[in-house]
Amino acid sequence: MPLPDLHTLNQQVARGETTHEALLDRVLERAARPEAAHTFTRLYPEAARAAARWADASRGAGVPLGPLAGWPVTVKDLYDVTGETTLAGSVIRQGAPVAQADAVAVQRLRSAGAALVGKTAMTEFAFSGVGINPHHGTPANPAWRGAEGQPRIPGGSSSGAAVSVALGLAVAGLGSDTGGSIRIPAALCGLVGFKSTQARTPRDGAFELSRTLDTVCAMTRSVADCIAVDAVLADQPLQVRPRPLQGLRLALPGTLMLDALEPEVAAAFQRALTRLSAGGAHIVEAPLPELAEIAQLNAPGGFSAVEAYAVHQAHFAAERARFDPRVAARIALGEPVSAAQYINLHDRRRGWIGRCRQALAGFDALISPTVPILPSRIEELRASDEAFFRANGLLLRNTFVANYLDGCAFSLPCHAPGEPPVGLMLTAPGGQDARLAAAALAVEAELQRSRH
Amino acid sequence: MPLPDLHTLNQQVARGETTHEALLDRVLERAARPEAAHTFTRLYPEAARAAARWADASRGAGVPLGPLAGWPVTVKDLYDVTGETTLAGSVIRQGAPVAQADAVAVQRLRSAGAALVGKTAMTEFAFSGVGINPHHGTPANPAWRGAEGQPRIPGGSSSGAAVSVALGLAVAGLGSDTGGSIRIPAALCGLVGFKSTQARTPRDGAFELSRTLDTVCAMTRSVADCIAVDAVLADQPLQVRPRPLQGLRLALPGTLMLDALEPEVAAAFQRALTRLSAGGAHIVEAPLPELAEIAQLNAPGGFSAVEAYAVHQAHFAAERARFDPRVAARIALGEPVSAAQYINLHDRRRGWIGRCRQALAGFDALISPTVPILPSRIEELRASDEAFFRANGLLLRNTFVANYLDGCAFSLPCHAPGEPPVGLMLTAPGGQDARLAAAALAVEAELQRSRH
Repeated sequence: MPLPDLHTLNQQVARGETTHEALLDRVLERAARPEAAHTFTRLYPEAARAAARWADASRGAGVPLGPLAGWPVTVKDLYDVTGETTLAGSVIRQGAPVAQADAVAVQRLRSAGAALVGKTAMTEFAFSGVGINPHHGTPANPAWRGAEGQPRIPGGSSSGAAVSVALGLAVAGLGSDTGGSIRIPAALCGLVGFKSTQARTPRDGAFELSRTLDTVCAMTRSVADCIAVDAVLADQPLQVRPRPLQGLRLALPGTLMLDALEPEVAAAFQRALTRLSAGGAHIVEAPLPELAEIAQLNAPGGFSAVEAYAVHQAHFAAERARFDPRVAARIALGEPVSAAQYINLHDRRRGWIGRCRQALAGFDALISPTVPILPSRIEELRASDEAFFRANGLLLRNTFVANYLDGCAFSLPCHAPGEPPVGLMLTAPGGQDARLAAAALAVEAELQRSRH
Repeated sequence: MPLPDLHTLNQQVARGETTHEALLDRVLERAARPEAAHTFTRLYPEAARAAARWADASRGAGVPLGPLAGWPVTVKDLYDVTGETTLAGSVIRQGAPVAQADAVAVQRLRSAGAALVGKTAMTEFAFSGVGINPHHGTPANPAWRGAEGQPRIPGGSSSGAAVSVALGLAVAGLGSDTGGSIRIPAALCGLVGFKSTQARTPRDGAFELSRTLDTVCAMTRSVADCIAVDAVLADQPLQVRPRPLQGLRLALPGTLMLDALEPEVAAAFQRALTRLSAGGAHIVEAPLPELAEIAQLNAPGGFSAVEAYAVHQAHFAAERARFDPRVAARIALGEPVSAAQYINLHDRRRGWIGRCRQALAGFDALISPTVPILPSRIEELRASDEAFFRANGLLLRNTFVANYLDGCAFSLPCHAPGEPPVGLMLTAPGGQDARLAAAALAVEAELQRSRH
């Protein structure tokens, strides 16, 4: 069970119903249970306890505290932590020099008083949306625990981040989103994920997958919590002006994003649309043929392959056998790309972004399912490259739109209680984060209202 | 003879000693004389006269005017002008679609009321510091008119821009600076050139040589005039706080920039240093070994070759014979560069910039000759590839430091009256434009004082 949201937690501690330290103790105890297997790559019990105690003592002394102060937060394995080698889910980085400084995102979370509980599991080098890691193990999707059959994927690449929040081991999981790596696991685990516009948050000290697309961001229990964490990561709060659902204009894309939905996803999404319409939102069908162009415009290999190859080129040939073969296969696509082709990738994207911004100009957001499918069984994708790449393509298909757009997006749950998690996504062009957050708050409120 | 500076011109017209239209008439008459041959690729007499008359009439009606209003300005051939094909000094672009809008720099100059006299000659695609154009002819350096022997190069790539200002056909020449293309011709023709930090001025509608290095900027008669033109191009004035020469800390580089000076350059530069020291500036020898790394860090081909190849790749193989062969040879260096190598170029540069900024932290600017040599004879460089590439390398050597640094730099004259022009350059890291401009004003004042 996830923890209560930050507002509730801060009320509980203010009323004396709990303490930061007591909650942290429960978290550390739960982190050792079997269901949390493979969620963490490293734990920081002493440092986290120091932050929790500091928050309790400061609160007692009347010091005003920010919303994250003293609460457990996890850090994806690709962020530098001083004195540690950043593995980013790999084995080839074992023995690499230790980080001389915390990543800026980690610094900012520490400055906000968060109790950093541990580093979380991820896809090797963050290069897939599935969440399977053949070196360090794959955490099971907590929402599917107890379902018939074997464990299901949590989604990735921020797999441990999502599982840590879904299991109640953290109020927020710091992750990253290059093609959907925050929103996919948020959707599959029943959480809220916010991919901010890339430029909002500094990437210093984050192991690079794609410099063009990587976004430093997080997943939480609620839209409000995502907004609070984003304010810390960006060192600047979004100026969110709350607005009613009535009059919100949401574009329902006629291209790509509604294709091939699994029945459970289609049903949950359709029910959400009906409720949002009933609540006063204008759901407007928009053809958006631009969305069909992405795959070709981003060929060959795309930004992630080219830019990841640039990171790894010096050791790639010699060490390829020690990579996850599925990650290596994608990185290898970047090798033959010329500088001129890469520059063209940027130019094509810039032109596309301009056309998309025009097409979306009259809307508050684009609305879609976050991912078109339910999570597969880990074992099934582990056993078959074909099944893996098919699932990976479907998982990333809708989320990648926001990355390619240099935009921002929220994924929030739209399933009914007792149903498997399904994510609803709101996507907007870059820089519209505050407006999108207001829309996400209104949509979340309506969906929660109708859920009860 | 160059025109008086903007302050003087605006005083003259305010006192009724001249009118904008009268000055423009003289300019248009002179533009037709033999010494202006090859300076313009196109003239706009009607549009320029309309601007001059508007300024006269507005002035008469008491309308407050900006400093550039009604004065002749020239535009390098690589800026879009609505309804014209932008040739950028080439022949392969003949027949390309006409521009649908003015370049932003052209728009801003028009909005400031400047009388745009014409488009000026340039090196093909701005790809050399020499200024020779085999297709459209090469303007002669006006400062060397009447010297023994044949015409000398004006420097490039903004060759016509410099000649237009040096001949008194414009108060300012809009050019561009990718490796020194403003400062080299300014130095060789006895003018002031200011390469601002790239990000100050938008490049929309400027034909691209290197997206990483291209800077939209201009050359004029004086530092103050460069500051005035920059305010228009950037749509935001520098906040220049005048300061005395006393206490200015100027780094004299122990590496690269003082190597192999021709005797006349060494003598003029040394005399300037002596005068600036006597005037109270601190000239501090700084080893700056970083400057020796640029050539290797920017290999193979460098940003200009790679990025120019990206621009031309679609037609390069088929049309190579119609390029200036010396330009084609440099563009071709970009063809084999991989995306990963190009990304590494960026990373190496970023690391170098960080180290250089640290090394220059205690200084107001780096001081050096703008170019180490006097201008060669046009015919000599036209006849010999070896002489051409040797001269080009020397011309760009010192100026390229500011481009690679993502910095800013002024070139200003430091020769005595009657001597051939020699440029003195002040270079500073990116974003320090206002501080650098204050230093340049103080240095210019001291050099002019001691000149008389």
